[in-house]
Amino acid sequence: MKQITGIFFIVLLACSMSTLSAQDTNAREHGIEFGVLPTGSNNTVTDVSGVQVGHKTLIRGEHIRTGVTAILPHPGNIFQQKVPAAVYVGNGFGKLAGSTQINELGTIETPVILTNTLSVPTAADALIDFTFGFDENKNVRSVNPVVGETNDGYLNDIRGRHVSKEDVLEAIESADTNPVDQGNVGAGTGTIAFGFKGGIGSSSRKLPKKSGGYTVGVLVQTNFGGVLQVAGAPVGKELEKYYMSDTLNDSADGSCMIVVATDAPLSARNLKRLAKRAIMGLARTGGIASNGSGDYVIAFSTAESVRTPYRSQERIQSHNVLRNEAMSPLFMATLEATEEAIINSLFHAETMTGRNGHTIEALPIDEVLDIMKDYGRVKD
Amino acid sequence: MKQITGIFFIVLLACSMSTLSAQDTNAREHGIEFGVLPTGSNNTVTDVSGVQVGHKTLIRGEHIRTGVTAILPHPGNIFQQKVPAAVYVGNGFGKLAGSTQINELGTIETPVILTNTLSVPTAADALIDFTFGFDENKNVRSVNPVVGETNDGYLNDIRGRHVSKEDVLEAIESADTNPVDQGNVGAGTGTIAFGFKGGIGSSSRKLPKKSGGYTVGVLVQTNFGGVLQVAGAPVGKELEKYYMSDTLNDSADGSCMIVVATDAPLSARNLKRLAKRAIMGLARTGGIASNGSGDYVIAFSTAESVRTPYRSQERIQSHNVLRNEAMSPLFMATLEATEEAIINSLFHAETMTGRNGHTIEALPIDEVLDIMKDYGRVKD
Amino acid sequence: MKQITGIFFIVLLACSMSTLSAQDTNAREHGIEFGVLPTGSNNTVTDVSGVQVGHKTLIRGEHIRTGVTAILPHPGNIFQQKVPAAVYVGNGFGKLAGSTQINELGTIETPVILTNTLSVPTAADALIDFTFGFDENKNVRSVNPVVGETNDGYLNDIRGRHVSKEDVLEAIESADTNPVDQGNVGAGTGTIAFGFKGGIGSSSRKLPKKSGGYTVGVLVQTNFGGVLQVAGAPVGKELEKYYMSDTLNDSADGSCMIVVATDAPLSARNLKRLAKRAIMGLARTGGIASNGSGDYVIAFSTAESVRTPYRSQERIQSHNVLRNEAMSPLFMATLEATEEAIINSLFHAETMTGRNGHTIEALPIDEVLDIMKDYGRVKD
Amino acid sequence: MKQITGIFFIVLLACSMSTLSAQDTNAREHGIEFGVLPTGSNNTVTDVSGVQVGHKTLIRGEHIRTGVTAILPHPGNIFQQKVPAAVYVGNGFGKLAGSTQINELGTIETPVILTNTLSVPTAADALIDFTFGFDENKNVRSVNPVVGETNDGYLNDIRGRHVSKEDVLEAIESADTNPVDQGNVGAGTGTIAFGFKGGIGSSSRKLPKKSGGYTVGVLVQTNFGGVLQVAGAPVGKELEKYYMSDTLNDSADGSCMIVVATDAPLSARNLKRLAKRAIMGLARTGGIASNGSGDYVIAFSTAESVRTPYRSQERIQSHNVLRNEAMSPLFMATLEATEEAIINSLFHAETMTGRNGHTIEALPIDEVLDIMKDYGRVKD
Repeated sequence: MKQITGIFFIVLLACSMSTLSAQDTNAREHGIEFGVLPTGSNNTVTDVSGVQVGHKTLIRGEHIRTGVTAILPHPGNIFQQKVPAAVYVGNGFGKLAGSTQINELGTIETPVILTNTLSVPTAADALIDFTFGFDENKNVRSVNPVVGETNDGYLNDIRGRHVSKEDVLEAIESADTNPVDQGNVGAGTGTIAFGFKGGIGSSSRKLPKKSGGYTVGVLVQTNFGGVLQVAGAPVGKELEKYYMSDTLNDSADGSCMIVVATDAPLSARNLKRLAKRAIMGLARTGGIASNGSGDYVIAFSTAESVRTPYRSQERIQSHNVLRNEAMSPLFMATLEATEEAIINSLFHAETMTGRNGHTIEALPIDEVLDIMKDYGRVKD
Repeated sequence: MKQITGIFFIVLLACSMSTLSAQDTNAREHGIEFGVLPTGSNNTVTDVSGVQVGHKTLIRGEHIRTGVTAILPHPGNIFQQKVPAAVYVGNGFGKLAGSTQINELGTIETPVILTNTLSVPTAADALIDFTFGFDENKNVRSVNPVVGETNDGYLNDIRGRHVSKEDVLEAIESADTNPVDQGNVGAGTGTIAFGFKGGIGSSSRKLPKKSGGYTVGVLVQTNFGGVLQVAGAPVGKELEKYYMSDTLNDSADGSCMIVVATDAPLSARNLKRLAKRAIMGLARTGGIASNGSGDYVIAFSTAESVRTPYRSQERIQSHNVLRNEAMSPLFMATLEATEEAIINSLFHAETMTGRNGHTIEALPIDEVLDIMKDYGRVKD
Repeated sequence: MKQITGIFFIVLLACSMSTLSAQDTNAREHGIEFGVLPTGSNNTVTDVSGVQVGHKTLIRGEHIRTGVTAILPHPGNIFQQKVPAAVYVGNGFGKLAGSTQINELGTIETPVILTNTLSVPTAADALIDFTFGFDENKNVRSVNPVVGETNDGYLNDIRGRHVSKEDVLEAIESADTNPVDQGNVGAGTGTIAFGFKGGIGSSSRKLPKKSGGYTVGVLVQTNFGGVLQVAGAPVGKELEKYYMSDTLNDSADGSCMIVVATDAPLSARNLKRLAKRAIMGLARTGGIASNGSGDYVIAFSTAESVRTPYRSQERIQSHNVLRNEAMSPLFMATLEATEEAIINSLFHAETMTGRNGHTIEALPIDEVLDIMKDYGRVKD
Repeated sequence: MKQITGIFFIVLLACSMSTLSAQDTNAREHGIEFGVLPTGSNNTVTDVSGVQVGHKTLIRGEHIRTGVTAILPHPGNIFQQKVPAAVYVGNGFGKLAGSTQINELGTIETPVILTNTLSVPTAADALIDFTFGFDENKNVRSVNPVVGETNDGYLNDIRGRHVSKEDVLEAIESADTNPVDQGNVGAGTGTIAFGFKGGIGSSSRKLPKKSGGYTVGVLVQTNFGGVLQVAGAPVGKELEKYYMSDTLNDSADGSCMIVVATDAPLSARNLKRLAKRAIMGLARTGGIASNGSGDYVIAFSTAESVRTPYRSQERIQSHNVLRNEAMSPLFMATLEATEEAIINSLFHAETMTGRNGHTIEALPIDEVLDIMKDYGRVKD
């Protein structure tokens, strides 16, 4: 009987924390602007047509604070309709699954899964299950699961490897095209950024028509350090919480997983170039890609004109690809959206207590807004 | 009762097949020479001091023909005493786990596991277990499992993912410094090379004293195609079984995993260069690194003077590394040992029947020796 | 007679312009701070012990606005005493000479020369001359010249290829350890950044003792675009001059050459990682590494404990190298010094008129300082 | 008068040596077969439609034995009609110009020039001249010259840098679509391979119609070492002349430049993969890519459907590219043609005496053919 009460309590706790962590405001809604390009309609990665995102958040008992985030390039059978993709390694202290095949063949063939470091194998296994779940794939005997991670081991009992294959499949199944839930959700449930509670963040940009009118969307899982800068304002310094300060004995380690989606019809080569710009966006937030950071970018295009069917009668494929010279606006969009997505993750994440009673405070939004005013970034 | 009999039967079958597949002769014992450098004492990768190899072979029922091979750089706690390493991707149609961190940090921190394509996640998970099993690692919350694979799905029910974490741990635990068992064992149980039964192969080279006296050992898991050449003799052509021939409708796809070990004290940079030469050795056997091949090389050094302790009070480490100019003999040794290891895998592997009654014939050794004689490679 | 007058006139013009372009103030001297780490003693790359810099500025007639900048890792015979080095390509629309050998062997063996795009061959040839000029090198038959470039073709008659081998040798010979001249000098004479006059810039950082006390120095040749940000303040936006604005029809193309020097004893692998962080520093200034940009970083260590003699009786070298975990402070130092060096190039560069009467205005310092005040970055 | 006689003598010497070095037989004409695929019509790189090759051979006095070879992807203005291309670095001890831009943008925009190591700057400068020579290019201010090299300093006074810009332009101008002259011509005039006289070699393959019917052509400049193997026969060993033998104190150093052309419509990504296979072809000849070797491969496609115009009104380009799965036959063709091209260079090259009276003997063809017979590779 006591046990049952305990379980009820945990469930309630999970629910209430889940409620607490649902913060509704982007940095931009506080009047903070990033860069010069307009956002997409909802300012999240799902502004890129066809992209779906789903989360599975695991907040259980005192020690489990982790989860799974799934990003689907399109709603169909991705294995049968591969999308062009590339991986760029900003700093490779990480366990990303799938990078070598993506870079060799120029495609991804599964959803992209984000989770914690030690649950990569489970998530990869679940992606194989997911792929085998399609009738059309019944003779498939090789799948390249794409799984990224950051280490949530301070707040989460990461050694317990609490993410199950079912959790991963649920994240995929729950994916939709709605604006992305951010903060302490999915793979961002237990992460830490710049000494504050990090999490999932997202943002998007829409290019002007004369530059092609394409949309670039970014989703991040933030778990890294440095000297926090919000739209150029030295927030970390003002809060006296930054890497190599006297007061914060922080390693700046951790990681940042970045997923970049675009409807621009890009070759894998140009997607690799796009991916590199996301790390430049990370730099704008004050990140330094520290030694212990696993900073990876996965970029893909959703444009139908560059998809590759698994099997084809044709030896030749006609790909309508963007010329090199048309890339610069997309580079800028990626940079801006990455910067904003990272800051959004901090604005959405709530204070979290987890493993061994460890607590990580949310970014103190009011204080930050005061600093932003001092630095002319938010109007009084 | 019937069921029990069935199980007995299966066990017996497994045993007998296991016996069948234990062939005792290297190519060299038939008088075939590869290259110009002398082999190490046993002509396998365990000639490199400290290196241990273990296999777990799964031959169960009619459909399971797979397994696990573990290569340990040294007998200690590898996580605590990391060895310098590098990964080179010959052709990246594969699912190797761990490559980005190895190339970023220049070290490996787990045994190297080889298995089948779809069991990579399980093996990676098992390596986390293995690492956590050491008392000294009890606070470790990040591990980079290194797992390579080839696709044994023609002979093995690969979709069933029959390799368990226990199998992986058993392979590690059974590892020893004895001459390596080759052929249809461990990760090579169900593989196919050049249209014949492939498997695990190994070879080694010992440099003359004036070149440093170092040993290079290679272990391969062969599962690829092309136009088989044995010590330069056109065996595939003579047997009329080769890629793009009229009779063999073979894709040349598959994969080759190559592990290179040396006691030469090499930096990660020079290990990357060493790794590249293994693919040149593969080329000498008639391999072409076809589109569908996952041809990866993991190279590591066992020299104590280049090991990196996990934690250290010192900021600076003194590494005694080989100069660039001393690398060429090691390059040649790697090339030769890889070529010979691949051919050895074919010489050791026996005919295998597996999934759906598929049978892959062993390389017809007698015929091959006749061809070798015709081409002056074996004396009458 | 007329001709002689003409020459006199040109010489006078060159002198007076040279005087004009010698601006004495770094951004920091106006009260602008970048990052959190202290600078080295003079805040230029020559704060790294042993590093020498020399310029040859070519301002001749109406159309020639170009030059050469030489960076020497140490005052000795670099070919005989090679320093560890790495090249990172941020965006490879450029003609950098020497990168493949640097990345293969992990060393540089000549001074680093910066010049204009079309004078790379001349500069490379001059570096061969320079190397052959040492008695000790009299039997040398292979040299790997390292030459970077940006395109100064708007202000300079670049097609005329006016840089001579003598100019390059003079730049090298004039190199010294003094604080670096910045702005319209040497390879920065005719360059453009963010729509304003760019040029040579430099900065340095000194790590606290507990982080090793190492110095990192950066020298840049700025010729690129984006949305200028000075210490986080949106200067480009406020000045209504930025990439993708309605008023500036700028391509953001151009290039940025970045040279990073440190006295920390780094392996080539860790120098490559360091080099990557310089592009993150570029990102902080508002750069986007546009399609047409050649953004390259050359990083080297001056520490004697990691030098490689050309010839050695020893097969093994003892290198005392920094552990991976000690890298993060150096990463941050590189990032900060690169950001500041780029801004310094703009603060030092004067308005320049050149080819076909083209004029590029200097950054309007007073206006910029007003903006900096508005954004809380400079105290009133 | 004496002087004039001297000049006459030199000219005569040059002519006679030139005549001597024109050997007319490929290895294949002696009955030696390489691989299993049929050659193109003339078995040289010019079998690829549109490809032109020209040589400028410099044999002057006693000490000058060098030259230039030019490969043109098509007869038009290459700068205006760029072809997709990629560079792969087998071993980077070399001075190849142009690689970073090729790999970034995926195109080449000049002819490919091969020459000696120290003449790379001159050749690069000449390619700028060449590009500026087109009216259509009169506003071009950035050119990416592609120049490869090997070191002919044993037979040639390489430090004298005797190649002039005119020599380079003559090589380009003399280029035609005829079967390629091989041996001691152009950039191969003074090179050494496997201890014998190397030079220029070429070969081609034509795929069967069911594999697309494409042609792959290879041109090599051979200057490297190892253990010579001719179509699998151990020629180096039998001649007792090989790397690490007791009798030959050879470093195996040198270099091999490889140019791969194909009319298959390939993306830059797949051209990079093709380029990697050329090093596998080199491995089949007994090459080891020694430490001091600069082994580079430049691969390009001549297919019009993948060309990129310099300027275009269109943002999007329609590229008809080959699917990944269709690559394997091209991989095999590249491998085979590279192997045969290298051997051809040895079969064509004649004994050469040069700098300081150094003499390098031609491969003793008769002896080799005897060995080939012993090893069943040539019928009696």
